[in-house]
Amino acid sequence: MINIGVIGCGYWGPNLIRNFIACPETNLLWVCDKDKKRLEKVMAPYPGVNSAEDIHDILSDKNVDAVAIATPVHTHFPLAVTCLENNKHVLVEKPLASSVEQGEELVRLAKENNLQLMCDHTFCYTGVVRKMKELVDSGELGELLYFDSVRINLGLFQQDINVIWDLAPHDLSILDFIIDETPVSVSAHGVSHAGNNLENIAYVSLGYNSSFISHFHLNWLSPVKIRKTIICGSEKMLVWNDLDPAEKIKIYDKGINVKRDDHENRGRLLVSYRSGNMYAPHVSQTEALSLMVKEFASSINEKRSSLTDGEAGLRVLKILEATQRSIKADGANVRI
Amino acid sequence: MINIGVIGCGYWGPNLIRNFIACPETNLLWVCDKDKKRLEKVMAPYPGVNSAEDIHDILSDKNVDAVAIATPVHTHFPLAVTCLENNKHVLVEKPLASSVEQGEELVRLAKENNLQLMCDHTFCYTGVVRKMKELVDSGELGELLYFDSVRINLGLFQQDINVIWDLAPHDLSILDFIIDETPVSVSAHGVSHAGNNLENIAYVSLGYNSSFISHFHLNWLSPVKIRKTIICGSEKMLVWNDLDPAEKIKIYDKGINVKRDDHENRGRLLVSYRSGNMYAPHVSQTEALSLMVKEFASSINEKRSSLTDGEAGLRVLKILEATQRSIKADGANVRI
Amino acid sequence: MINIGVIGCGYWGPNLIRNFIACPETNLLWVCDKDKKRLEKVMAPYPGVNSAEDIHDILSDKNVDAVAIATPVHTHFPLAVTCLENNKHVLVEKPLASSVEQGEELVRLAKENNLQLMCDHTFCYTGVVRKMKELVDSGELGELLYFDSVRINLGLFQQDINVIWDLAPHDLSILDFIIDETPVSVSAHGVSHAGNNLENIAYVSLGYNSSFISHFHLNWLSPVKIRKTIICGSEKMLVWNDLDPAEKIKIYDKGINVKRDDHENRGRLLVSYRSGNMYAPHVSQTEALSLMVKEFASSINEKRSSLTDGEAGLRVLKILEATQRSIKADGANVRI
Amino acid sequence: MINIGVIGCGYWGPNLIRNFIACPETNLLWVCDKDKKRLEKVMAPYPGVNSAEDIHDILSDKNVDAVAIATPVHTHFPLAVTCLENNKHVLVEKPLASSVEQGEELVRLAKENNLQLMCDHTFCYTGVVRKMKELVDSGELGELLYFDSVRINLGLFQQDINVIWDLAPHDLSILDFIIDETPVSVSAHGVSHAGNNLENIAYVSLGYNSSFISHFHLNWLSPVKIRKTIICGSEKMLVWNDLDPAEKIKIYDKGINVKRDDHENRGRLLVSYRSGNMYAPHVSQTEALSLMVKEFASSINEKRSSLTDGEAGLRVLKILEATQRSIKADGANVRI
Repeated sequence: MINIGVIGCGYWGPNLIRNFIACPETNLLWVCDKDKKRLEKVMAPYPGVNSAEDIHDILSDKNVDAVAIATPVHTHFPLAVTCLENNKHVLVEKPLASSVEQGEELVRLAKENNLQLMCDHTFCYTGVVRKMKELVDSGELGELLYFDSVRINLGLFQQDINVIWDLAPHDLSILDFIIDETPVSVSAHGVSHAGNNLENIAYVSLGYNSSFISHFHLNWLSPVKIRKTIICGSEKMLVWNDLDPAEKIKIYDKGINVKRDDHENRGRLLVSYRSGNMYAPHVSQTEALSLMVKEFASSINEKRSSLTDGEAGLRVLKILEATQRSIKADGANVRI
Repeated sequence: MINIGVIGCGYWGPNLIRNFIACPETNLLWVCDKDKKRLEKVMAPYPGVNSAEDIHDILSDKNVDAVAIATPVHTHFPLAVTCLENNKHVLVEKPLASSVEQGEELVRLAKENNLQLMCDHTFCYTGVVRKMKELVDSGELGELLYFDSVRINLGLFQQDINVIWDLAPHDLSILDFIIDETPVSVSAHGVSHAGNNLENIAYVSLGYNSSFISHFHLNWLSPVKIRKTIICGSEKMLVWNDLDPAEKIKIYDKGINVKRDDHENRGRLLVSYRSGNMYAPHVSQTEALSLMVKEFASSINEKRSSLTDGEAGLRVLKILEATQRSIKADGANVRI
Repeated sequence: MINIGVIGCGYWGPNLIRNFIACPETNLLWVCDKDKKRLEKVMAPYPGVNSAEDIHDILSDKNVDAVAIATPVHTHFPLAVTCLENNKHVLVEKPLASSVEQGEELVRLAKENNLQLMCDHTFCYTGVVRKMKELVDSGELGELLYFDSVRINLGLFQQDINVIWDLAPHDLSILDFIIDETPVSVSAHGVSHAGNNLENIAYVSLGYNSSFISHFHLNWLSPVKIRKTIICGSEKMLVWNDLDPAEKIKIYDKGINVKRDDHENRGRLLVSYRSGNMYAPHVSQTEALSLMVKEFASSINEKRSSLTDGEAGLRVLKILEATQRSIKADGANVRI
Repeated sequence: MINIGVIGCGYWGPNLIRNFIACPETNLLWVCDKDKKRLEKVMAPYPGVNSAEDIHDILSDKNVDAVAIATPVHTHFPLAVTCLENNKHVLVEKPLASSVEQGEELVRLAKENNLQLMCDHTFCYTGVVRKMKELVDSGELGELLYFDSVRINLGLFQQDINVIWDLAPHDLSILDFIIDETPVSVSAHGVSHAGNNLENIAYVSLGYNSSFISHFHLNWLSPVKIRKTIICGSEKMLVWNDLDPAEKIKIYDKGINVKRDDHENRGRLLVSYRSGNMYAPHVSQTEALSLMVKEFASSINEKRSSLTDGEAGLRVLKILEATQRSIKADGANVRI
């Protein structure tokens, strides 16, 4: 049984609280928030859990094994450092930190102290994304050819970050989870329509050492909501429409076969087309967060890295930083 | 009455023939094709029209006012030159020619000889595109913010051109028709999966001197067919789904209002959101080609440039050439 | 301020509790449930509200003005009778009671005691249904021609009622709310596939004294979920797709014009077709239940019938009973 | 090689002509139409085929083996009788004739003269319907539970027949082709909005000796076009959406398992739900008509009944007649 403290009762904290309480492998000891009123309101249904306005109540409790941090992004780093220095395992909301430098420091600290550092890439624990990973890993799609994602709607214009830092962490954590190959460069184009230099529409292309390519359309200013990802393989092609209430993933037995005509037309390519069945696999409905907190507990119990560990959070940060540099340099190719 | 000759009986020629015959302002005198069998088959239902295997039969006929060229792209330039030199008005299938240099020469020749040169940008004559132009021109959408187009499916891999030269002329001619502002730079990313150095997937971003942006996803290797364009304005947003059999255009009364908070939070932006009715305007079902051939005849009769004249064809060529340079330079920004 | 007691903490009760607390015109005094554990769990976040395991605690409290009943259907009648006899206004979950006879008795009792009796036809308070009523009442649709509803999915097979008693109350309460004309007969067809004589698929046709017709497809055994209603008028036609996350109502400016050809073909009808714009009106997102509880309070304060009063509940019951008779008589026409 | 004559060059005739010419097992000798102009226009591309304005030119030609009749419905019977009496095999457009009596006479005549009589139920030769029959016949769907079809749009109001005679032949011929069990009764409801006593909206329920049920919504006055059929089986459920350009048939591995609880609650049913993968089988794109004319030729060559023989046409006629009686009797159950 892993004893847990949660820091932060804002938007996401209550979800963590609910799942840590429900998880048979975790025991929620403390919840902390600086805002006393919010804390009281959130904790009303849980009289058996301790409330704290100061995190040191948690850190000084020797029974606490691990801390989950669900606070604003710029506080992730200092809070995580303190927790790690007080010998607590740490789970951090995404993104892991505000910069690659901070992320690297957290990863180093955790390793040094033999502690688990995990990043809450929630999407990776959904039935849909796990199924996609399973399909890719099994080789059913064949050699992977491209990854294309559209994540657009009329969304909340953030005040401090652009649309990339707001939406891309979802896609990049999924990409990192499913696709083995590592991107080596990024080119990003976007504009700001609100006059504050924060892009509200962006197009991001990731380059690889192979002929694989990935691309992301991120947009807060679209009249229609679209959440659609294509993962194209040489054998099969997959479309994930997250807004389809019934069949979120469809796998198409479609593709091309390429032959070189060595006789009549030297070098001419002969392309033929395949079009077979489509199927939509049944996808587990288990709540992603329940699996995420279980994985956190298991990684601590089994003294192993979690599926979305600090390194994964760091890889996402690296792409985000490079993307930011590219978009400010008019789409120039930036090495990752 | 404009007397017409048509060169080329392949895929597109028969459509031109049918429409020139139906148009009350044109009189089809000649049809020419080097392939005698194909010519005979196509002309069987039209015994009153002359057939020719040699274009000089057409060029030497003093009664012929204008020639329509529907042949492979690399023959557009020499054929159009010959026709213009023989004092015939010219309609050319898109793209206008194989290079900007050729396109400029054609435009120059036509002007010098007081002849109409027109490019068959068919999409510009559809009810849908005309309605979109009307909406943009009327100011109903407000200030234009971006143009995003997705044109993907499991398509025929061409042997001599990449997916950009195959599909982008559609989008670029529509962009040219509807959007007044001229793009100044392009960045294009893409890869070839067939091993022949011809990209089958490409992402194209056009940059402007303002905060307008346009983007195109072109793809021969998609499991699903998508034909969707968003034109976002400051007042209203438009979505064109060309595969919707009933309502191809939807106009959303949605948007944001941005205010600067000069009191409490200096510089902080206050963004509020509007969400009103959506409507789908009734769109004319008149065949685009019938309007295109009528416009060709009218431009000749009225001695004026047509809606999609040689200059329009040349503007599209300029973007295509710059895009090609960018994709071969790994997405580098190329001036148009 | 109306003082309220709620009876029943099952599926629906907590929603009523939340809304009575939030409503500025109501004051929640008591909540009652026979199951002590469930009661405690539901009431944990509301320490200021009294809990009771026996309804007489509520009925004997002179401060209580009105009682809301959210218990199993067969208990609606006895509970409502007791409340009315104790001089409390009553709100009952749908359906109002188990039979027309019971419903008539409740309506009589309420009238005799000058008390408000209201039925919680929640759908009638949604933005969508209110907008549809507004469109019909304004005459925008013209003369109404038919009402067609499909409400199917792989649904929970109820143990005590067939698919009609489970799903049709939704549609019939909406029909009653929007359509002025009263059905005079019903014919219902259906079968049971579970071997328990409770139909899991049913088709219900309502006949009228005019050429209006309404029809309902109700189905627990469909692979796909459909919630679609067409209200066709002589001027415009409306489609309500409750599963569309963005545009639930679409209004089509479509129709036919019928003329009688008195010259050439005596009696022959000349039908011409109109097809204009479609639009999707913006629909209020206010929670239906919040408007429902407000209407309950207002009807008491203003001593007037509510929008969905006991009479409305009774009209729905009458159709349900007739439908049940028809389906058991192999679809025979039954007078309502 | 079967020598063919075609009677009728209206809407459907040219399709038959094209397919008889393309079919390697048929030889088109004659085409006949009373309207000389129409005949000349249709036959222009086929100089090698004989034209006739009088059917006796065809009937007296000893080389003609079979005649296809594509004329108005009320002429089907007299023309087919004449052809059969002149010893020609006969293919008739649907419906087979104007009444059951006529249909029975045709079937009798054909049998008496050892001639093939076939009804052109084109839908039965589409890839989609053949695939559905294959799935049903293989037992993959399990025991069949119901057949539900919606065929509605803003359609052409016919002058002489109601919406049932116009649209139901499609559905009834498909039902007859796929479902072995024979309906024993029909109940139909509908109204006429054009004031000519011809229903433009109709709901048709077919009853069976088992707990199978089938239902049809037919409608000329719908703002949206829907072509959707559900065939529900105990093992799997199938949805055919004919307007889906990509995946017309979807098969859902969904269903219920019903057990009787013999212990605690005697007689109480325990219903559990299955929800597995969905798949969309690849469907042959071969033109239905090409398979239909081939089947006509094969049935003659092999002296066997065709897949959609006169008996099939007659079965459809019987349901149509009973449906007509029911709708005129206010939906009364009519024995078929």
